[in-house]
Amino acid sequence: MSTEKSASEKDSTANQSAGISVGTGLLPLLPMLYIAWADGILTPSELATIQEKLQAQPWLLPEEKKQLRGWLDPASPPSTTELMAWLKIIRRAGRQVGTESRQSLAELGLQIARLGSDDRSQRCTTDQACTALAEVEEALGVSGKEATAELLGLEYAEKEPQETSFEVDRMQLLLDGEFREIREKVKRLLSDPVFKYQYGLPKEEYRELVLEWCRALAQQGLGSLSYPKAQDGADNLGEFIAAFETIAFHDLSLSIKFGVQYGLFGGSILNLGTASHHESYLRQVGTLELPGCFAMTELGHGSNVRDIETVARYDKETQEFVVHTPAESARKDYIGNAATHGLLATVFAQLEIDAERYGVHAFLVPIRDSSGAALPGVRIADCGEKMGLNGVDNGRLWFDNVRIPRDNLLNRFANVSPEGNYTSPIASPSQRFFTMLGTLVGGRVSIAASALSASKSALTIAISYAAHRRQFGPVDQPETILLDYPSHCRRLLPLLANAYALDFAQKHLSDLYTNRTADNARQVEVFAAGLKAVSSWNATATIQACREACGGKGYLAENRFAALKADSDIFATFEGDNTVLLQLVAKGLLTDLKQEFNEMKFLGLLKFMSQSATTAISELNPVITRKTDQEHLRDPEFHTAAFRYREHRLLLTAARRIKRRISEGMDSYAAFIDCQEHLIKLALAHVERVVLEQFNSGLAEVTDANLSTVLVRLRDLYALARIEADKGWFLENGYMEGGKSKAIRGQVDLLCSELRCDAVALVASFGIREQLLGAPIARA
Amino acid sequence: MSTEKSASEKDSTANQSAGISVGTGLLPLLPMLYIAWADGILTPSELATIQEKLQAQPWLLPEEKKQLRGWLDPASPPSTTELMAWLKIIRRAGRQVGTESRQSLAELGLQIARLGSDDRSQRCTTDQACTALAEVEEALGVSGKEATAELLGLEYAEKEPQETSFEVDRMQLLLDGEFREIREKVKRLLSDPVFKYQYGLPKEEYRELVLEWCRALAQQGLGSLSYPKAQDGADNLGEFIAAFETIAFHDLSLSIKFGVQYGLFGGSILNLGTASHHESYLRQVGTLELPGCFAMTELGHGSNVRDIETVARYDKETQEFVVHTPAESARKDYIGNAATHGLLATVFAQLEIDAERYGVHAFLVPIRDSSGAALPGVRIADCGEKMGLNGVDNGRLWFDNVRIPRDNLLNRFANVSPEGNYTSPIASPSQRFFTMLGTLVGGRVSIAASALSASKSALTIAISYAAHRRQFGPVDQPETILLDYPSHCRRLLPLLANAYALDFAQKHLSDLYTNRTADNARQVEVFAAGLKAVSSWNATATIQACREACGGKGYLAENRFAALKADSDIFATFEGDNTVLLQLVAKGLLTDLKQEFNEMKFLGLLKFMSQSATTAISELNPVITRKTDQEHLRDPEFHTAAFRYREHRLLLTAARRIKRRISEGMDSYAAFIDCQEHLIKLALAHVERVVLEQFNSGLAEVTDANLSTVLVRLRDLYALARIEADKGWFLENGYMEGGKSKAIRGQVDLLCSELRCDAVALVASFGIREQLLGAPIARA
Repeated sequence: MSTEKSASEKDSTANQSAGISVGTGLLPLLPMLYIAWADGILTPSELATIQEKLQAQPWLLPEEKKQLRGWLDPASPPSTTELMAWLKIIRRAGRQVGTESRQSLAELGLQIARLGSDDRSQRCTTDQACTALAEVEEALGVSGKEATAELLGLEYAEKEPQETSFEVDRMQLLLDGEFREIREKVKRLLSDPVFKYQYGLPKEEYRELVLEWCRALAQQGLGSLSYPKAQDGADNLGEFIAAFETIAFHDLSLSIKFGVQYGLFGGSILNLGTASHHESYLRQVGTLELPGCFAMTELGHGSNVRDIETVARYDKETQEFVVHTPAESARKDYIGNAATHGLLATVFAQLEIDAERYGVHAFLVPIRDSSGAALPGVRIADCGEKMGLNGVDNGRLWFDNVRIPRDNLLNRFANVSPEGNYTSPIASPSQRFFTMLGTLVGGRVSIAASALSASKSALTIAISYAAHRRQFGPVDQPETILLDYPSHCRRLLPLLANAYALDFAQKHLSDLYTNRTADNARQVEVFAAGLKAVSSWNATATIQACREACGGKGYLAENRFAALKADSDIFATFEGDNTVLLQLVAKGLLTDLKQEFNEMKFLGLLKFMSQSATTAISELNPVITRKTDQEHLRDPEFHTAAFRYREHRLLLTAARRIKRRISEGMDSYAAFIDCQEHLIKLALAHVERVVLEQFNSGLAEVTDANLSTVLVRLRDLYALARIEADKGWFLENGYMEGGKSKAIRGQVDLLCSELRCDAVALVASFGIREQLLGAPIARA
Repeated sequence: MSTEKSASEKDSTANQSAGISVGTGLLPLLPMLYIAWADGILTPSELATIQEKLQAQPWLLPEEKKQLRGWLDPASPPSTTELMAWLKIIRRAGRQVGTESRQSLAELGLQIARLGSDDRSQRCTTDQACTALAEVEEALGVSGKEATAELLGLEYAEKEPQETSFEVDRMQLLLDGEFREIREKVKRLLSDPVFKYQYGLPKEEYRELVLEWCRALAQQGLGSLSYPKAQDGADNLGEFIAAFETIAFHDLSLSIKFGVQYGLFGGSILNLGTASHHESYLRQVGTLELPGCFAMTELGHGSNVRDIETVARYDKETQEFVVHTPAESARKDYIGNAATHGLLATVFAQLEIDAERYGVHAFLVPIRDSSGAALPGVRIADCGEKMGLNGVDNGRLWFDNVRIPRDNLLNRFANVSPEGNYTSPIASPSQRFFTMLGTLVGGRVSIAASALSASKSALTIAISYAAHRRQFGPVDQPETILLDYPSHCRRLLPLLANAYALDFAQKHLSDLYTNRTADNARQVEVFAAGLKAVSSWNATATIQACREACGGKGYLAENRFAALKADSDIFATFEGDNTVLLQLVAKGLLTDLKQEFNEMKFLGLLKFMSQSATTAISELNPVITRKTDQEHLRDPEFHTAAFRYREHRLLLTAARRIKRRISEGMDSYAAFIDCQEHLIKLALAHVERVVLEQFNSGLAEVTDANLSTVLVRLRDLYALARIEADKGWFLENGYMEGGKSKAIRGQVDLLCSELRCDAVALVASFGIREQLLGAPIARA
């Protein structure tokens, strides 16, 4: 490249650097040529366009045109040294020119050229030159303003931080609700250094640590909250569930061990046993003096409890039950507290009297002596390493004709007289079975609650981190805060809305459960099953999204996602596999439907329904299906109508599909199985509808206007994001048109941006103390 | 209840059990009343209907009507003893009646009554009685055939097992492809007892085990497969990738350690260094004598490599580079091999000469002496426990003015002369940066491959298990095999189709990568980024679904999901965060679009595009959008057209949205960020289109007709399940109507059932040996 200087340039220092000089006439081109070459994106045709345009300009001297040709030769582009030199010239000049020059690269170039006060400087900054340069800039497709900022190293003022719109304390009061005191108590306890997280412990040590934690909680009376006062309990099931929900902000192994001991094992004695069982056992269960197991699941029989194989045969002679494992598939499996700590087990077995089977019943079977050795006839094995929850000692149990006294039958719902006469206050074996399984409902309520707590922990970590972590950003500005990326909000805030929605639904479920009666028992059971499934899957999705949102830091054990993810994974399976539970929900809805119309014959009913489904479709109003204004899209009546329509239509079409199969000769079991996916979808639609309605009910009671405003946004986001997620269904069934579904997407975007300023306060309102949260990345 | 006997019953034993006798006239009713009460679902109005209907029947004696009234009193339903007695009567009689009686409960009842040979038996089985009973049965809504089976304890013949439609060996040959030999070699090696899985190891032991495994692989020449023959390598990049892909059937810590050492660290020397570096280091890298690190990521700079802060300042006096960590955010973080084993590190740092910055370059920095002690100026820390991959020793590095010789600059793309003159064959700093980052492309190709392998392992375990595990089922039949549940197939088989589709796409990517040229480098980079994102997210979804499909057994460490899930989780983040990579893909597509139209000015182009998008919509043909016949839905041209249309439209609308924002005054960075979600969707649509096309290309070369048939089904399932998953978009944009999207759902159902018989063979064709698979539940 030429380094000789033309006469007209001698008085200018603006166009020299590192021994490289640039002709004055070329100065106006320098910024855009630098940007073009530095990005390395000049295509041959772009180069040709520029050549043609510029070579025609009268203000360029022949030697400048020659230099330019050199610069625009794709075979030998400017060298690194040359580009660096250009940049220095531009930056040096940039400091001297005004801010108005920053509007475009051409304008910046012209200003640089004007710094020279001689004739040449004037001649090459004429209007004609300006027009030509602007055209070149457009042809290059480089956008001016930010490119000049890049060139000059300018700094922009950052976005004003926005203020939170509500008081965190008040929101927390609202979320804590009726059981605020016990929640605070649990949090205070768990903030004690004794409960500090430890990562990477071998499972043996981890199990002992969790046992000690469990005992520490029992010492504070938390174990026996739901037990009768006569056994030193508080007779307060609501408090027990709230305590469990709060413990789930901490290590989930602790929650599950706590739940196994005081909820499942103790609960089986409380709910299936009678006064003498309560008096004999509950006190020691509540203090953890008597660690125990809830031995229902068998290797071959997970969800299908009715078909378990363990037998409890009544021996009239000795007035004992003989508990026996008849086959390997009948071994009790995945039993919490079994591998190491349990002394007594509630064992579910087929009751047999005089070779006659009476179905599944629960028996108390001692499995270890006080030294921890297995009792005669009992074989125990360790389930070993698990994906998570390694602080819980899951094990296997086999019984070889183990004899227990007749009194060890938990006999609230069925009794066997010394002579071997079977009696039960519930005549129907199937009703009796489901009543006994009712103990599982408490487990499902608790798992739904702890899945929600795990989601809240994950959201608190990811949103707190996103509020201070920066990555990428516009040139020469501080990197952008993650939460200022719309896509980051889009990923996290609908999950935050889910957590709020589920919070209201969970309170509703706990209320229903703690105040349940014989009349609404089935309703509670159905909703517990549904919410457990929805809440656990939501936890899986939330924790995953939050982990990914924290990048590599989210992968470190200290930041909690490892444990949250691995521990909560099994929530989708235990206390009932989610897909099985959702089919239970669907069955419940079909039964309700049948009862609703129980004046008609079943087939008549189905005929009626098929008509009614058709009618509902034809009634869809095009004005509504096309409505896209914000007022409509944020109208709770629109949300409720959409959720109800979906559920109702799925219910009617499910009934119709099943009926058609039956009338074609399928048996109803096969017909049901054939429609499984449909039924699962129905169940999910049902749960989402109830969740939305509970969110609305909760909202109706909020008096603080600021809380109300932000909660309405969350409700709108929950409703619209759920509709958006299922837009395929709504569009397919003509409930809305494409324009409307696009408008809903726009509203979800908008709601995410409206909630951006409150995101940190909304997770702070979950009130998870720093000690419980762990996760150093959550702290700025 | 009355136990007295009427005269007419004395000669019958059919209606007595356990001291309870049933009037002959009531016998026909017994089966349906038993079923109704045993299920416990008789509503008051049902009871009223039955009462009304039956009390009017002339064939019932007054005392029988009285007994019936007692049975139908909801206030005192039949006792357990009574129900048990009924059941015995029914079963005893059932053994004597023919199979035709099993059609309905009424028919069964009538047959039981007919067993008595007296007048009464005849009188209560008249046609009139038959009709009345059938009506009652219908009113009760109890379906006959299966209820009778339940009552009588009948056994059904099980479904015929279906035959596999193709030969597994041939399919495996096809999948193994060009690199069959190396794949077999790796599998043989990994089947050695040395490589037996060990669960629950403390991380220190686990790291040493994985190091030993890595060394064992190196001893077989696997480490240096891609290195020049001059350095004892095989100069075969394709084999290296195939080996890596196969290793990923085993412990993923091993894959990643292997990849860090031989791929990233060795690859950086190979690709960024020159002959003297190759000669000095590659041999010992390939044998693991020289364990090393690839130190790019910093605490504050994960995805955004351009802004890393570590500095390498050139000191002319001593002709050394001085490597320094200027701030905590600049510490090297998550660096594999750093915590324990690495001796040398390829450190990425900002090159500085004479206070001038030249951008990111790579330097070889010794970090430990041969005794394992950190060298002066180098500080090393352990990242500690991670969610997974705890067999890899990730660590942190800080440099305090560490001096290295000038030769330690990996100088293929830039050199610094002894005097401090900087030269580079690539003038554009941004092109140089991306060329150097090209080393990451190999990492992405490998991660995509190992994510696919992890998916295949998960599918093999879950499908093998589902083929023999039974749970629930019709009454009195063997429980149903999981894979015979349509919903189970629905959950797993589309993921199996994904694995096959990605297999073809992965081969394409490996080919592209190993044969890349300067001309297609960017294309390869874009596809590697896209496939890595899609394949890693697909692995997350697949492993999760497979774990849940295996219930509690899937949660035990021995069944592999724990490790697969935790280890592969980070695939979404490392070697580039998926959302960042997908934006890279979208940027690439936008650039291509620009170049395609590079004769026009950019704005003109955008105008053109907005028109073209509009045109495309108006051209949608209602005949096509409504077409629902199978021939059309399984026509590969329909699939390709749909995938292309989606990608094209998303591309044009993305360009238009960005343009509108720019023309409204946003800078292009902000405009791009504002459309992030749209761009990610575009990128995903692009990758899915390429995957589909690669599936089709692969299919075109298959000559075995049986393989072809099953692969066509998998291709159809892949294409239709992806369209179904995105039906919201296709419906929203008028590409199909509701009827068509429902028909697609039907086809997906049908394809799943067609593929059911081949599912086990299709996973067997992945050829994962038992020793590599682990997972006892995969064995029947």
